[in-house]
Amino acid sequence: MPSRVRLDRTRTTPRTPLAAAASRSDRGKSRAAESPATVTRVDTRDGRASTALLTDQYELTMLAAALADGSAHRRCTFEVFARRLPNGRRYGVVAGTGRLLDALRRFTFGESELAVIAPFLDPSTVDWLREFRFTGDIDGYREGELYFPGSPILSVRGSFAECVVLETLILSVLNHDSAIAAAAARMVSAAAGRRMIEMGSRRTHELAAPACSRAAYLAGFDATSNLAAVREFGIPGAGTSAHAFTLLHSGADGEHEAEAFRSQVRALGVGTTLLVDTFDITRGVATAVEVAGAELGGVRIDSGDLGVLARQVRDQLDALGATRTRIVVSGDLDEYAIAALRAEPVDVYGVGTSLVIGSGAPTAGMVYKLVEVDGIPVAKRSSHKESRGGTKKAVRLARDTGTIVEEIVYPAAGPAPDAGVFEARELLIPLVRAGAVIDDAPSLASGRDLVAHGLVSLPWEGLKLSAGEPAIPTTFAS
Amino acid sequence: MPSRVRLDRTRTTPRTPLAAAASRSDRGKSRAAESPATVTRVDTRDGRASTALLTDQYELTMLAAALADGSAHRRCTFEVFARRLPNGRRYGVVAGTGRLLDALRRFTFGESELAVIAPFLDPSTVDWLREFRFTGDIDGYREGELYFPGSPILSVRGSFAECVVLETLILSVLNHDSAIAAAAARMVSAAAGRRMIEMGSRRTHELAAPACSRAAYLAGFDATSNLAAVREFGIPGAGTSAHAFTLLHSGADGEHEAEAFRSQVRALGVGTTLLVDTFDITRGVATAVEVAGAELGGVRIDSGDLGVLARQVRDQLDALGATRTRIVVSGDLDEYAIAALRAEPVDVYGVGTSLVIGSGAPTAGMVYKLVEVDGIPVAKRSSHKESRGGTKKAVRLARDTGTIVEEIVYPAAGPAPDAGVFEARELLIPLVRAGAVIDDAPSLASGRDLVAHGLVSLPWEGLKLSAGEPAIPTTFAS
Repeated sequence: MPSRVRLDRTRTTPRTPLAAAASRSDRGKSRAAESPATVTRVDTRDGRASTALLTDQYELTMLAAALADGSAHRRCTFEVFARRLPNGRRYGVVAGTGRLLDALRRFTFGESELAVIAPFLDPSTVDWLREFRFTGDIDGYREGELYFPGSPILSVRGSFAECVVLETLILSVLNHDSAIAAAAARMVSAAAGRRMIEMGSRRTHELAAPACSRAAYLAGFDATSNLAAVREFGIPGAGTSAHAFTLLHSGADGEHEAEAFRSQVRALGVGTTLLVDTFDITRGVATAVEVAGAELGGVRIDSGDLGVLARQVRDQLDALGATRTRIVVSGDLDEYAIAALRAEPVDVYGVGTSLVIGSGAPTAGMVYKLVEVDGIPVAKRSSHKESRGGTKKAVRLARDTGTIVEEIVYPAAGPAPDAGVFEARELLIPLVRAGAVIDDAPSLASGRDLVAHGLVSLPWEGLKLSAGEPAIPTTFAS
Repeated sequence: MPSRVRLDRTRTTPRTPLAAAASRSDRGKSRAAESPATVTRVDTRDGRASTALLTDQYELTMLAAALADGSAHRRCTFEVFARRLPNGRRYGVVAGTGRLLDALRRFTFGESELAVIAPFLDPSTVDWLREFRFTGDIDGYREGELYFPGSPILSVRGSFAECVVLETLILSVLNHDSAIAAAAARMVSAAAGRRMIEMGSRRTHELAAPACSRAAYLAGFDATSNLAAVREFGIPGAGTSAHAFTLLHSGADGEHEAEAFRSQVRALGVGTTLLVDTFDITRGVATAVEVAGAELGGVRIDSGDLGVLARQVRDQLDALGATRTRIVVSGDLDEYAIAALRAEPVDVYGVGTSLVIGSGAPTAGMVYKLVEVDGIPVAKRSSHKESRGGTKKAVRLARDTGTIVEEIVYPAAGPAPDAGVFEARELLIPLVRAGAVIDDAPSLASGRDLVAHGLVSLPWEGLKLSAGEPAIPTTFAS
């Protein structure tokens, strides 16, 4: 993969051990210099929060039992996969890998974390966790890769002890980000090249919001309203104006929309986007052009029948000579509403709620399953929730046109399957070796390219928004 | 309200200014001592992250325009309310207030935050933000209070400038936590007193997970699997075991479930809960009692027809003399599945996915609207999204039995409405005065009591799980 500009600041440090901690003595020293309030939340050497408690309690009690009986040191493979795609989706999008590798670096237990777990764990387990650094290997699908039911998206290998404690963190990051990215990709493909702004922060947890911006950008959105995402991930920021700003300039003596528009243009220039639907849209558009001139950057419509209004506003703008003024629409847009506006003169979609709730599928349903112990495949078998034992690899087959036709999951110990007349591409790449993140793990920018490429590679049926079968079948070779 | 033990550690500091920062000179000094890596994320005096960038860009560009034209200093009221309840729900639950007050304390712009916004703001706006401290007043419904369409859940008063910048943070926290709490309350009421454990961390953003645990606990859940929630909010932790632990003890030479159980009991005592559905449930239960004896704390069933299995396992346990061994069920439980198990011998419900995705309504749909400027009511009027102008208060009317009958929202400037034969309770209480959090703002523990009390106060129809009208009507008095 060619070298690209790295937008993802979570991936700027080359080949850092997961826990960027120095020796124990160094740790002790820096801790002593910290105030008690700081110790509560800041436990890694770079001043960022430890991720070690983003964990379910049972992982640590299983660890305690396994350390006590000696089984903790057995060599294991855990795999992440989704049994199915939600709501009859045709494809999934792997997202969160960059964030996950960053979070794994911070998965270390400082005194503050140990104080929480000491009450229910024996001292030797607490000591083990104090020393904990992941030293195993992780392979995974590239961030931005499409996936299908059964795709072995992540393969984590190491001792049982060091793999079992990562379950919740790995699943939280991948399930969240992949759910958002899958919804975003459907919206991007429905928008057919028009500009997309993510503006859903207010409809999700405040700290999930930047991750939503990131997943949307990965899937092809152009910008975000969220400033934390601008800082953390280098995503372009964007914004318009709210009804409150127009209302602020009105009052008992009437509706002074022009005053609000004049103020905004004075502060932000004529390239700004004016919100025209506070009182009356036709009057709002006329006032906007009157104030800003025909060079006005854009107008936003946030309510009403967006298709009808977009046409009407386009005609009005054109008649006023504002032929290059963009029309931004927002307000409960999802992929279906976006597709329904395809024939209308819309320039920019602002998408909020439906994006951050995964458009009906807020979580990707991935699981983290133990598939191999000391070289022996293992699998539970009590119910429909069966899983396939053994460490796996996967290839995706494509025609020479680039259209994909099948995914084959096969035992990692065996030979790669015969691709026949198709081209086969290996899907798992090394992400972590002996606890260190691989130097050239893909960046957010390259992941964005990969999603765009992936959508083009789907068979025609794969881009349908309606519910149905996955775009390609997954075959399990043995 | 009587004094109670405060479990919510976000509310332990009495009457602290929202931003616990000292004078400018102090700030400069401590900043200079920090390493660059620390500055990136840690910008408040207590070492915890600034929340100032959890904000949409347009709030700051509106601020810039309003500062330039002088309107930024007009006295405003912004109100938070939900136009409707999602999916035909009968009631909402206010949640997140404690987290919000904590986040507001940390809403300050350090140099790291200012570096992100300086590229698109004029220097005087940047200077204004450098000095920013919220100095206004906030009233709100108590955390744990039920709400209905139009309930003025939060009332924020101050200059336009200081109120407008808080929009996204306020909505993110309240929309997320209230959505989870509403789903949790429905589950708690369906469980009719049986023990509930929240275990959904792996199905939501890693940092949203502790907030989900907190909202679930507020609504009546008994414990959480999430260790960060144990630390941050003092919620009781809980956990059982995963299939991986049983599989770890098996391999090529057979299924050694007994070995796994023995190890767990040795490490955690006979009071532990053993997962019995890895291979065959009947055999698993027999093995569990064989290993742990009749004093075994619990068995967990995570798959299959939980009703049928619970009955069968209860009979088997009783026949083995393990009459006090609890049955824990988990696996895609939502309020409907919980209700369907009401007649079955289930002791504990473990709830994951459906809880953290709000059981089909992952966001509460609250909005933050400017309703008054310099004493004059304002409202947009272009569409169905109309809002009612003017600062409001609200009372809830109840019969002398305690059953609620109506909510009346009325102008804050006017007299309280006539309650007739009913008892009226004012719903808005002071939370912040002149930028300082009120000393006795309700705690998480008192909020939990309030939810329990609220559910009992609903008319009979209000506890129905099916879609329908809100449990009580909201009347807008003028």
